[in-house]
Amino acid sequence: MKDTSPIAQMPALGLDMGGTKILAAVVDARGKIRARVKMPTQAEDGPEAVVKRVAKSVFAVIEESKLKLDDIGAMGISIPCPTDPLVGFVENAVNLGWLNFPAKKKLEKAIGRPIWLENDVNAGTYGEFRYGAAQGRQDVFGIFAGTGIGGGVIIGGKMHRGFNKTAGEVGHIVMKVDGPVQGGGFPGTFEALASRTALTKWLTKQIKKGRKSVLKKLIKAEKKKGGKGIHIRSGMIKDAAESGDKMVLEGLDRIARILGMATASVVHVLGPEMVVLGGGLMEACGNYLMPTVKKTVEKFTFEIERRNMDVVMAQLGDDAGILGAAAIARDAAATSAQAR
Amino acid sequence: MKDTSPIAQMPALGLDMGGTKILAAVVDARGKIRARVKMPTQAEDGPEAVVKRVAKSVFAVIEESKLKLDDIGAMGISIPCPTDPLVGFVENAVNLGWLNFPAKKKLEKAIGRPIWLENDVNAGTYGEFRYGAAQGRQDVFGIFAGTGIGGGVIIGGKMHRGFNKTAGEVGHIVMKVDGPVQGGGFPGTFEALASRTALTKWLTKQIKKGRKSVLKKLIKAEKKKGGKGIHIRSGMIKDAAESGDKMVLEGLDRIARILGMATASVVHVLGPEMVVLGGGLMEACGNYLMPTVKKTVEKFTFEIERRNMDVVMAQLGDDAGILGAAAIARDAAATSAQAR
Repeated sequence: MKDTSPIAQMPALGLDMGGTKILAAVVDARGKIRARVKMPTQAEDGPEAVVKRVAKSVFAVIEESKLKLDDIGAMGISIPCPTDPLVGFVENAVNLGWLNFPAKKKLEKAIGRPIWLENDVNAGTYGEFRYGAAQGRQDVFGIFAGTGIGGGVIIGGKMHRGFNKTAGEVGHIVMKVDGPVQGGGFPGTFEALASRTALTKWLTKQIKKGRKSVLKKLIKAEKKKGGKGIHIRSGMIKDAAESGDKMVLEGLDRIARILGMATASVVHVLGPEMVVLGGGLMEACGNYLMPTVKKTVEKFTFEIERRNMDVVMAQLGDDAGILGAAAIARDAAATSAQAR
Repeated sequence: MKDTSPIAQMPALGLDMGGTKILAAVVDARGKIRARVKMPTQAEDGPEAVVKRVAKSVFAVIEESKLKLDDIGAMGISIPCPTDPLVGFVENAVNLGWLNFPAKKKLEKAIGRPIWLENDVNAGTYGEFRYGAAQGRQDVFGIFAGTGIGGGVIIGGKMHRGFNKTAGEVGHIVMKVDGPVQGGGFPGTFEALASRTALTKWLTKQIKKGRKSVLKKLIKAEKKKGGKGIHIRSGMIKDAAESGDKMVLEGLDRIARILGMATASVVHVLGPEMVVLGGGLMEACGNYLMPTVKKTVEKFTFEIERRNMDVVMAQLGDDAGILGAAAIARDAAATSAQAR
């Protein structure tokens, strides 16, 4: 289908509307980024102001790409909340502070073109599927670990959104009955055990217990720069791991075991062809996490389940979202143009 | 499609090849069972003998239905192991003692007709989807709890088998990191926490601790009949629950909480339209389990995830497997006849 529709060969726009920043890109049909623009979201100004800033980013990045609005075959915008792309109504986007906001309608009015509104982790998974680690695979599960943990499901080469367009929320599966709570989540979930938040909590506790670690020095250096309390960034964890710090390596290993068990659980339930692991923590510390993740998947699955099934690191980093948003919008537009 | 293919209107045969018994039925297009036959599996005689007994059951039930072999539009046989219906090779069916056995080929030779070989829990889920609790739904997850816990996935009205045809193995998801082991399974899995086996283990432990329960009397009565050790059947658990036995009700509530959390996990990952809970324990004690299951699902999911999403008890009992095997074979045959 993609070969015969002209839209399939046209550049598409992908935009990632995050809680802190807006990333926009013009992406050609091969997944090459021809131009990119970054702006602060400034969500505190309210949804109408953010919509204006999104439209501004769209026009700016198209100008940057030296193309015109009509050269863009499709536009995909990702948003950090569940949404039905065909409706595009946002009930509650916590990170943006949006409540019951007709996002698709408002964005289309501001931009003057139809848009495809997609959940951000779905877009990231689709990006890895079309241009990254999962190219050519048909049944893919994406797990993205950062502050929280999100996921995306591709079945038979198509985004699986589920009955209420909420599928993929793997961060909320229970992995420790009556276990710890994270944020407004449920007790004992995957993300309460294995997100960067969970890791930094554990590391902080170890430091307070008086355990030796180079992390103490790194935290002090961070405080001198004006940081308050104990703040541990992914980069600091990586630096400590690279210096061979035992405490940090132990912490990463604990997280990796949980990531492995969760991957195994996804394999049991869905039988994917590939599980792609991404997100900030994985990007920074993937080399330290992956060996234990893979060993744990082997321990917690049957041989028949993991035959020719791969567990790999994501390849596109921060670009997965914009690439995925562009691709999913283009694929949807090309398919519907074909159907006409 | 189903309306225009003659196969879709013909009776089909469904057969459930279990570890202890073979159940066979002739099922009309509306899901009515026109004849049924039951035989012991006698798996200890080896696969070739069992294949003969299956063929015998097939011919017996067709005779019983007063139909002829040519009146049967399709034949579905379910088996307690993963299998690719198009290949039908069995690598390891533990309950049957089959290893690397070309089951489809052997069965087709013995019966003289093409058969559709399907995993037993997939067949059960498909039965509930076509004729039971999930009729008219498109995205369905079946969870069947008995000695172990199995599951089946229907997406977009079709059986989802996954890349290695192993999807639905929800009993092996980790729900308690470093938790108890059951049989040859992995530590802390759903089935190690919430199968009938897990429940009877807990009940036995309570009794040994000296806790009061009518179950003691029931076990004694069972022993007089010739049973050895402590043997607790689903029916005894039901009887004890009906008499208001506190220990047994507490045990059921513990299981129900885990069932609810597992259901919530499936909802997070797949976003189904309906989760159907079946199996021996659910059939016997569903009325005691379901209120806590539902309450727990509410506690462990977001409102948007469970909107118009139902969690219900299976309706077909032991017949789900034979009805599902017949229906899935008929639907597959009707679709491929259409495609020709």
